[in-house]
Amino acid sequence: MIPNSNIKISAIRGSFLDFIADPFFYPELETVRYIDDGLMIVSAGIIQELDTYDRLKPKYPEISVTSYPGMLILPGFVDIHVHYPQTEIIGSYGKQLLEWLNKYTFPTEGKLKDKSYAKKIASFFLEQLLENGTTTALVLTTVYPQSVDALFEEAKKRNMRIIAGKMLMDRNAPDYLLDTPETSYEDSKKLIQKWHGQGRLLYAITPRFAITSTSEQLHLAGVLKQEFPDVYLHTHLSEQQQEVELVAQLFPNSKDYLDVYDKFGLVTNKSIFAHSIYLSDYEFKRLSEADSNIAFCPTSNLFLGSGLFQIHRAKSEQNQVQVGLGTDVGGGTSFSMFKTDNEAYKIAQLQGQNLSSLKAFYLATLGGAKSLNLDDKIGNFNAGKEADLVVLNPRVTPLLKLRNERNKSHSVINIVDELFALTILGDERAVKATYVAGNLTLLAH
Amino acid sequence: MIPNSNIKISAIRGSFLDFIADPFFYPELETVRYIDDGLMIVSAGIIQELDTYDRLKPKYPEISVTSYPGMLILPGFVDIHVHYPQTEIIGSYGKQLLEWLNKYTFPTEGKLKDKSYAKKIASFFLEQLLENGTTTALVLTTVYPQSVDALFEEAKKRNMRIIAGKMLMDRNAPDYLLDTPETSYEDSKKLIQKWHGQGRLLYAITPRFAITSTSEQLHLAGVLKQEFPDVYLHTHLSEQQQEVELVAQLFPNSKDYLDVYDKFGLVTNKSIFAHSIYLSDYEFKRLSEADSNIAFCPTSNLFLGSGLFQIHRAKSEQNQVQVGLGTDVGGGTSFSMFKTDNEAYKIAQLQGQNLSSLKAFYLATLGGAKSLNLDDKIGNFNAGKEADLVVLNPRVTPLLKLRNERNKSHSVINIVDELFALTILGDERAVKATYVAGNLTLLAH
Repeated sequence: MIPNSNIKISAIRGSFLDFIADPFFYPELETVRYIDDGLMIVSAGIIQELDTYDRLKPKYPEISVTSYPGMLILPGFVDIHVHYPQTEIIGSYGKQLLEWLNKYTFPTEGKLKDKSYAKKIASFFLEQLLENGTTTALVLTTVYPQSVDALFEEAKKRNMRIIAGKMLMDRNAPDYLLDTPETSYEDSKKLIQKWHGQGRLLYAITPRFAITSTSEQLHLAGVLKQEFPDVYLHTHLSEQQQEVELVAQLFPNSKDYLDVYDKFGLVTNKSIFAHSIYLSDYEFKRLSEADSNIAFCPTSNLFLGSGLFQIHRAKSEQNQVQVGLGTDVGGGTSFSMFKTDNEAYKIAQLQGQNLSSLKAFYLATLGGAKSLNLDDKIGNFNAGKEADLVVLNPRVTPLLKLRNERNKSHSVINIVDELFALTILGDERAVKATYVAGNLTLLAH
Repeated sequence: MIPNSNIKISAIRGSFLDFIADPFFYPELETVRYIDDGLMIVSAGIIQELDTYDRLKPKYPEISVTSYPGMLILPGFVDIHVHYPQTEIIGSYGKQLLEWLNKYTFPTEGKLKDKSYAKKIASFFLEQLLENGTTTALVLTTVYPQSVDALFEEAKKRNMRIIAGKMLMDRNAPDYLLDTPETSYEDSKKLIQKWHGQGRLLYAITPRFAITSTSEQLHLAGVLKQEFPDVYLHTHLSEQQQEVELVAQLFPNSKDYLDVYDKFGLVTNKSIFAHSIYLSDYEFKRLSEADSNIAFCPTSNLFLGSGLFQIHRAKSEQNQVQVGLGTDVGGGTSFSMFKTDNEAYKIAQLQGQNLSSLKAFYLATLGGAKSLNLDDKIGNFNAGKEADLVVLNPRVTPLLKLRNERNKSHSVINIVDELFALTILGDERAVKATYVAGNLTLLAH
């Protein structure tokens, strides 16, 4: 279908790679779609079609083509757990989770009460995402509604798929960061009505975690989720042992950590639980039944000494749980999905497991999209999806060039190896360009 | 002392930071020397003096000064375990140690039989070191003497402090990589006579590890070490559990893995043992008594899933063992000491320990120099030492700039925090210049 001529239409030529199924459950090479010399037609921000250049070009004889020779084009990356207010405290020294919150996080979140400051940080944060090829993110904010407005306003300017919500916290934090069950309910409701479904923006009800919310607050979060079943629920789960023990003390009537949320109706198919390191079999089973989702945050789990997420348990045949990747900046140490994949691989290796590059990039693209129930809109290159793309240079540094000399031919096996080299050696320099809904952000590196 | 006028003399101005003691054993801030506005006088590659600019400049009224405003100048980094032939297989997928050797390492080492190929790789490798601010390295080669010549020839051109030696392997490897006890002895002896003490070059007798050397070969390595007590002994120790078990089978009469080497006189104050992850208390005690040294290789230990090195055991009061850092490329995933420190920090965190940035940079500079018994020549800025320096830009990326906004003043506490940010967020882009024995390599980034 050739679109109406007054709609903006563009064409991108290059090597395209995306996923059509989950490589954790199907033979890997059957889950990947690779077109060595492809042409993608984009109209009004939507992928119209993608095929080989030779087959498609004759249909569009007049179209001007943007070519990326030697590059690999993937779906834009999806980061399903990241704290924008913590951008400036990335790489802060010396603490594990609970102390880290007190020493670094809370004072920094307090600064975002000032909306103009929040806007400055939100803008910087979104530019960092784009620099790293990330086009969709599920983002934590602060307790202040204006910090949510700041993020959504900046995201709207860039037409990015951002999901976020006001942080709910009514205890165990400094006074200046506390709301109440009632204000958290009212403020969240107003924000949902204002932002959910505005352009590409979506809302997530966001209790920080069980330690900083009373039962009353979690109850009202559940009420809100019932009133707006279409919004997300985003929180932390079972990140460190000390935290798990404290949650057990605070909620003595809950069977386990997940059950705290479950009792309030917060364990749903649109719920995303970050970390999920110390889960029992029962908790995995319950997440699987509820079709809930886990954000695996490798760089953060190592940096805060949290522990080793067992992805093989989430990706088991019996208790399958959808998993995506979170950079978890500022507990995480990078906005880069390459570095996130790098440390995901290392966490697997420490447990005697392998995480292939196809699995790793699946998590960073279609896996992330599925975790957000957005795989009808993003995550791969199916016609009709939004044209979020990242253009990668697998030979951007002298070391990557030497390392990838063995991949002279463009067989899929070689491409898979190039992607692995990117996960181990790559950073934002390898991101040549990022497309958001068809619009190009050309990057300086 | 103003040197003779026909000797090349130069002056560098900037913020200098180095160590004068071990921060693992002394109050950290007493082990570091920081000069905010310093001047270093270098003559014939040797540090003549370093003091504040105000005090020193009047002594050298005519001297032309190279200034690095906003930069931090540290001693050149010391990498005490790295395989130059494996540069091209960095980031190769999916194996743990023993399989990794068979699948990737051995075939690649075979290519270095061709000396011109070895020269090409050696040259690339040394440039990578300089790009990353590393001026001294203890390097593994291959079984072929010409691969040692290739490295030393290239290092000599650059006047770098490189220590290396022919790999000894007479079993459990492909035929094309095997020597014999006799040829390994003879070839090593010739190489020692040719290279040890030539300019800044030094020799290390290098049995790969107990699995690939027979008792006869280890015996002759010990004989050689006695004949040339001044050379180094460099090998691997206790990297993975499967390896430890195999060594126990191969050497049933040895008490433990270290004892295999000890029986042949290879546990000395100039011995460097890479990894040392699964050591008993007895082995730590023996290493301490013998004044031996450990190369801690964080990125490799995670990438190959080897395990978590317990630096707190090596740095205990009772059994103190000197420790330096090894990038261990190609099992390691980066030539960067920042990235190495980053993952060292994470390994400590996973064990509930903290590794401060001062400890981390001590390991990368004076700690490494002490591990090589070279602290009379390199490792800090004492007058009379060789002028190996690295000039760092702690604000080289937008993210580092934002992160380091909190360090507006140049107090030592702020500098320590900037260094920590570099270990977490830095890479070779932060290396503005590297000086090798006073000679400047200005880097493009």
